[in-house]
Amino acid sequence: MKVSVLVRPKAGILDPQGEAVESSLRKLGFSVSDARVGRVVDLEVDAADAAEARATVDEMCHKLLANPLIESYEIELP
Amino acid sequence: MKVSVLVRPKAGILDPQGEAVESSLRKLGFSVSDARVGRVVDLEVDAADAAEARATVDEMCHKLLANPLIESYEIELP
Repeated sequence: MKVSVLVRPKAGILDPQGEAVESSLRKLGFSVSDARVGRVVDLEVDAADAAEARATVDEMCHKLLANPLIESYEIELP
Repeated sequence: MKVSVLVRPKAGILDPQGEAVESSLRKLGFSVSDARVGRVVDLEVDAADAAEARATVDEMCHKLLANPLIESYEIELP
């Protein structure tokens, strides 16, 4: 089953990459604010159904994909 | 208006970060394949409506956020 995980820096956590993106976009003339950069991880997971896939990916997030101290994650199933 | 942009390596493009994630997940005992890692960029954009926001962010993607030779992008509006 195809699963996407969105990992984002939590509110209040410094995000230098987001700051660089925002500053570059402004220099290009765009009117933007609050730019934040995170990761998207696409995976093909062995699972019988959506609930099992979600539980497995949740475990992956805890063990490897996200750092819960500074990042939040969101699991997207088709 | 809040906008999220998902930037992913195109099919066929080498993705060492995805390979590292897949190999680490397997070592942890997970049964996964096709791991790919991209970026998610969250932005607050000045726009009157969704169509204007999408057009602006599309221009941002062409000019800065994505490299169209090796990356595809997807714009998500609320």
